[in-house]
Amino acid sequence: MIKVGIVGGTGYTGVELLRLLAQHEKAEVALITSRSEAGIGVTELFPNLRGVYDALSFTAPDAKLLAACDLVFFATPHGVAHELAPELLDKGCTLIDLSADFRLQDKDEWAKWYGKAHGAPQLLDEAVYGLAEVNREAIKNARLIAVPGCYPTAVQLGFWPLLNAGIADNARLIADCKSGVSGAGRAANVGSLLCEASESLSAYAVNGHRHLPEIRQGLRLAAGGEVGLTFVPHLAPMIRGIHATLYAEVIDHKRDLQALYEQHYQGSPFVDVLPAGSHPATRTVRGSNICRIAVHRPQKGDTVVVLSVIDNLLKGASGQAVQCMNLRFGLEETLGLAQIPALL
Amino acid sequence: MIKVGIVGGTGYTGVELLRLLAQHEKAEVALITSRSEAGIGVTELFPNLRGVYDALSFTAPDAKLLAACDLVFFATPHGVAHELAPELLDKGCTLIDLSADFRLQDKDEWAKWYGKAHGAPQLLDEAVYGLAEVNREAIKNARLIAVPGCYPTAVQLGFWPLLNAGIADNARLIADCKSGVSGAGRAANVGSLLCEASESLSAYAVNGHRHLPEIRQGLRLAAGGEVGLTFVPHLAPMIRGIHATLYAEVIDHKRDLQALYEQHYQGSPFVDVLPAGSHPATRTVRGSNICRIAVHRPQKGDTVVVLSVIDNLLKGASGQAVQCMNLRFGLEETLGLAQIPALL
Amino acid sequence: MIKVGIVGGTGYTGVELLRLLAQHEKAEVALITSRSEAGIGVTELFPNLRGVYDALSFTAPDAKLLAACDLVFFATPHGVAHELAPELLDKGCTLIDLSADFRLQDKDEWAKWYGKAHGAPQLLDEAVYGLAEVNREAIKNARLIAVPGCYPTAVQLGFWPLLNAGIADNARLIADCKSGVSGAGRAANVGSLLCEASESLSAYAVNGHRHLPEIRQGLRLAAGGEVGLTFVPHLAPMIRGIHATLYAEVIDHKRDLQALYEQHYQGSPFVDVLPAGSHPATRTVRGSNICRIAVHRPQKGDTVVVLSVIDNLLKGASGQAVQCMNLRFGLEETLGLAQIPALL
Amino acid sequence: MIKVGIVGGTGYTGVELLRLLAQHEKAEVALITSRSEAGIGVTELFPNLRGVYDALSFTAPDAKLLAACDLVFFATPHGVAHELAPELLDKGCTLIDLSADFRLQDKDEWAKWYGKAHGAPQLLDEAVYGLAEVNREAIKNARLIAVPGCYPTAVQLGFWPLLNAGIADNARLIADCKSGVSGAGRAANVGSLLCEASESLSAYAVNGHRHLPEIRQGLRLAAGGEVGLTFVPHLAPMIRGIHATLYAEVIDHKRDLQALYEQHYQGSPFVDVLPAGSHPATRTVRGSNICRIAVHRPQKGDTVVVLSVIDNLLKGASGQAVQCMNLRFGLEETLGLAQIPALL
Repeated sequence: MIKVGIVGGTGYTGVELLRLLAQHEKAEVALITSRSEAGIGVTELFPNLRGVYDALSFTAPDAKLLAACDLVFFATPHGVAHELAPELLDKGCTLIDLSADFRLQDKDEWAKWYGKAHGAPQLLDEAVYGLAEVNREAIKNARLIAVPGCYPTAVQLGFWPLLNAGIADNARLIADCKSGVSGAGRAANVGSLLCEASESLSAYAVNGHRHLPEIRQGLRLAAGGEVGLTFVPHLAPMIRGIHATLYAEVIDHKRDLQALYEQHYQGSPFVDVLPAGSHPATRTVRGSNICRIAVHRPQKGDTVVVLSVIDNLLKGASGQAVQCMNLRFGLEETLGLAQIPALL
Repeated sequence: MIKVGIVGGTGYTGVELLRLLAQHEKAEVALITSRSEAGIGVTELFPNLRGVYDALSFTAPDAKLLAACDLVFFATPHGVAHELAPELLDKGCTLIDLSADFRLQDKDEWAKWYGKAHGAPQLLDEAVYGLAEVNREAIKNARLIAVPGCYPTAVQLGFWPLLNAGIADNARLIADCKSGVSGAGRAANVGSLLCEASESLSAYAVNGHRHLPEIRQGLRLAAGGEVGLTFVPHLAPMIRGIHATLYAEVIDHKRDLQALYEQHYQGSPFVDVLPAGSHPATRTVRGSNICRIAVHRPQKGDTVVVLSVIDNLLKGASGQAVQCMNLRFGLEETLGLAQIPALL
Repeated sequence: MIKVGIVGGTGYTGVELLRLLAQHEKAEVALITSRSEAGIGVTELFPNLRGVYDALSFTAPDAKLLAACDLVFFATPHGVAHELAPELLDKGCTLIDLSADFRLQDKDEWAKWYGKAHGAPQLLDEAVYGLAEVNREAIKNARLIAVPGCYPTAVQLGFWPLLNAGIADNARLIADCKSGVSGAGRAANVGSLLCEASESLSAYAVNGHRHLPEIRQGLRLAAGGEVGLTFVPHLAPMIRGIHATLYAEVIDHKRDLQALYEQHYQGSPFVDVLPAGSHPATRTVRGSNICRIAVHRPQKGDTVVVLSVIDNLLKGASGQAVQCMNLRFGLEETLGLAQIPALL
Repeated sequence: MIKVGIVGGTGYTGVELLRLLAQHEKAEVALITSRSEAGIGVTELFPNLRGVYDALSFTAPDAKLLAACDLVFFATPHGVAHELAPELLDKGCTLIDLSADFRLQDKDEWAKWYGKAHGAPQLLDEAVYGLAEVNREAIKNARLIAVPGCYPTAVQLGFWPLLNAGIADNARLIADCKSGVSGAGRAANVGSLLCEASESLSAYAVNGHRHLPEIRQGLRLAAGGEVGLTFVPHLAPMIRGIHATLYAEVIDHKRDLQALYEQHYQGSPFVDVLPAGSHPATRTVRGSNICRIAVHRPQKGDTVVVLSVIDNLLKGASGQAVQCMNLRFGLEETLGLAQIPALL
């Protein structure tokens, strides 16, 4: 059994991690920390977990106790993993960080987008970006894994085959993304209230969202060079789900895009390339670690439209983190991640 | 008082027309027809209208009775207005058609997208496209007004100033649109059930939606030439609202876009150009005839992003129809359309 | 024109008051106060009001400025009206309080339920409970009007004719109530987040809700004696609306309940008694000041079931406040309150 | 492996059965029938099941093929099981019927509520009501199991301990129930459209719902005698979940109700009696077979309020059916039913 610690378990990614790990036959949660909820039983905060975690309580963060775990997940605001990672790595823990702390390889870019100096730049070289469909082998041997953000996961999986094949105009890519409200986390903000966020839809952060540099970094890797990207996130009136609608101009019109995508993801158990002409709905992946993708060329024109949907809390966060754990600990990639989405 | 008849009043545009006209001081509904509900009281079908239309019942369509009206609205499936329009025009009625029957100026294009021959091509020359912000003067003198579709309204109002100024690359425009479920009407389709459409988001008709030729026709007019447009509609889990996210490449970087939009819409009481940096939410126009628009150039790059929101049932249908009525009958453009959106 | 001041205008009842008063031909908002938002334009906080209140900003509360108003509405947390009312009444203002400060006639009961001493017990004798359907004449002459709570409005209007007729067992009344989330106000609480409150339903405060003593006080008046009431409020996954399902045992089986209710509310323009056998949906009153009521005796048994629906922000708060204003200032009771609910 | 056939698999209970059985290690779906969808692949209709049932298609109902199964589930409208059951039982199949066909023990009552004669009265004697918490032993030996309705499950589990202990006034019980829209099934009715059912709440069938006789039959068994019940179902704007709010008058005030409920359900793995003072939300059971119950006596008065929540599609239908299968085939009662509800 993998002995697991979770730092910062009171948010939505934390409670989803708990739920996934409860059903995972090779891992057990030994410790979950929360500064604000220390001493409170997990099921008091999360009544959905009654009968599952009745004996587990939140404890104040304690590096010594965490160091006794095989694996520590960070489900924290940015900056926390910077602080704790060096000591825990020294003690031999494997770290899987769901925050943004180690996603960007360039510490200056991190500082620019997060408004303070990077707290552990010495670890950037060995941090592995935890997108299994791109980095599977590196993840297997990593000590420090940075789980991708939710938008970056949906966008990169959707664009990767196209850019990697070198058949798109990389200078003008567009990612129009729609996210459920859980992407904003469990913070008590007025904008996330049911009365404000339901029955409405709006774009936000059009001038620059923190996921933009992360997506660009990934797409550069796919394209093998610079890319131009416009990324517009939208808040949609639903709990879960990301729908990325991706636009690019093809420069090679003879390539069979459907075959390209199907071949590219053949060995990836969590990416489902739909039949030509399909329109994936976010509900078809809700509660699962699956990404469903459909590729279109409307009226056989120059523009490719890729539709890519994920559950932002699973493939976009906690599910992807467990997928990384499986790879890192030599387990079947899909272990504990066989949840089937409900139709409704 | 304008004596009004409504053909096909049992759908969502019909019931919204009824509601708007009840509050309009210069019009009164004399007649509302429905083949399926003939004999049923309006308030039996629409209990929200109790106390307002207690004396009105649906009647079977009857050209003679309709001909006695000053103005007939069509809130019907396509094809019905084709059939009835010639006779009613002959009898001196003014017609405002909320269906697609007279929106496209080219009868062959109509036939291609609607799957049958156009039923009244002889009227195409005089049919006026009812987008007041473009066609105000023509509407004032029209006998037959074709109210624009919901997507076309949001997209055209958002793109118009940009294309009209000739500062965008017209060959590659993108309109990524999100609509509430009421856009699908009151038909009992499985896909519109709460259990299927809520808590989910998906694109549809990526390969070609009936509003595509209508939008293209309008944008050609704005641009004074051919345009290339990719239009992707999405179904969002809410009742009302359209959010159009529009992308274009600017070729003249010196132009002040904010000023351009503000000036363009100065005389248009229903278009509200938001301050630079804004993100309009669909709920800020819900229940009103307002279109709110914000213009962005993310990170001062080449791509312009225009956000345009309307209530699909009002500015995208029944409200716009009343706006046309006001213009046509020499009334204040805003008469009866002063509804203020609720915050929630 | 009635010169209106609003104290505490940043919540949902405040923004709804603003919206209603903008459409009211005999009142104008001269002043709106907010400690936290002083200096901010109303339309910055509430973009739905753009074009309507462009010139109005929140100001810090200032008794002198408020005293210059004919009428001051309190849309504040409890306790604030206690503090300001004495001075404003002295200066000749009429006060309409949407908070709970003057709803209970017994200062000790107030202290028990609100956890501190009543702050202005000397005003209790003259405070008039603002339920027009019960207190119409008293409201016309009141200086200080306490607008009823949302649950109390729906429950009292539903029970009143039955209890007043003396044909129910008053010892065991049940009010099972379901409310939209806006009843919890605009406070940023985790429980009101879309992610927590949508797609779920739960009871709360079963052991005692602050509206219980207010309802009991009203029902005692209706019954002319003591009543036994069980009141269970529920949070329903929607923005607006209260559905009260009321249960009582009839002791006089011959009485025609339908006729009783219809006669009782004959002179009340905002109460709509539905035909026998009806089931009012909350959406049929959304956005209006209407209360719709249906009376049932399932299978002709002893139990009466009354269904009573209102929009909690209108008939349950701001609409009722305007109704009180109309009565108090000698205007038509319905002035500015003719909004017709949308079907959807 | 239990060889399973499903009759009528295109509705919501059918697709949930498929999902549960896919994760069940001792059962496999050999056959699924649908008259309307015969020949269509299961994943074409239900894209959420891609990768799980890729090889399964709907077939026309065929008694011979069904007879080759160990177990046949009926997920059909009423009447279908009447027709097929006799032959399948003869051939040695076990039948678990999710429809209403065998829930009522009295064929005349069935005829009264379902509007036609009972189609297989000869089987009523041996049909076992599939509420495991009441009938566990009988289910183990049954050939024909009638899975309870969704409302009856929530109400019976909530009332049972109280009535069985003989400490309530059985003559006047009230069940005020709120259901998600999936309770209405996958039929394309206008009333179940998102535009009609979301953002609203209403009661329905106050004068008599088909689940009333079923609940009464169960409560009579619990009470050991006649009961008087008022049952009011409501449609709540959410996909899944039933919240039953139950009211009864206690006649023995000394009994510790909390202890009574906890003891009663000690051996029932799917009933979770919450700590005193709790308010279960429907979301805490969504996606699981759990029923959570809380018992209140507001202000220590005579009225007991029991709150009982289930997922109508699982404990109220398909989950309960699998629970019955487990018992009937000698498996662990919880096998394949360990899904943990998500917090959101």
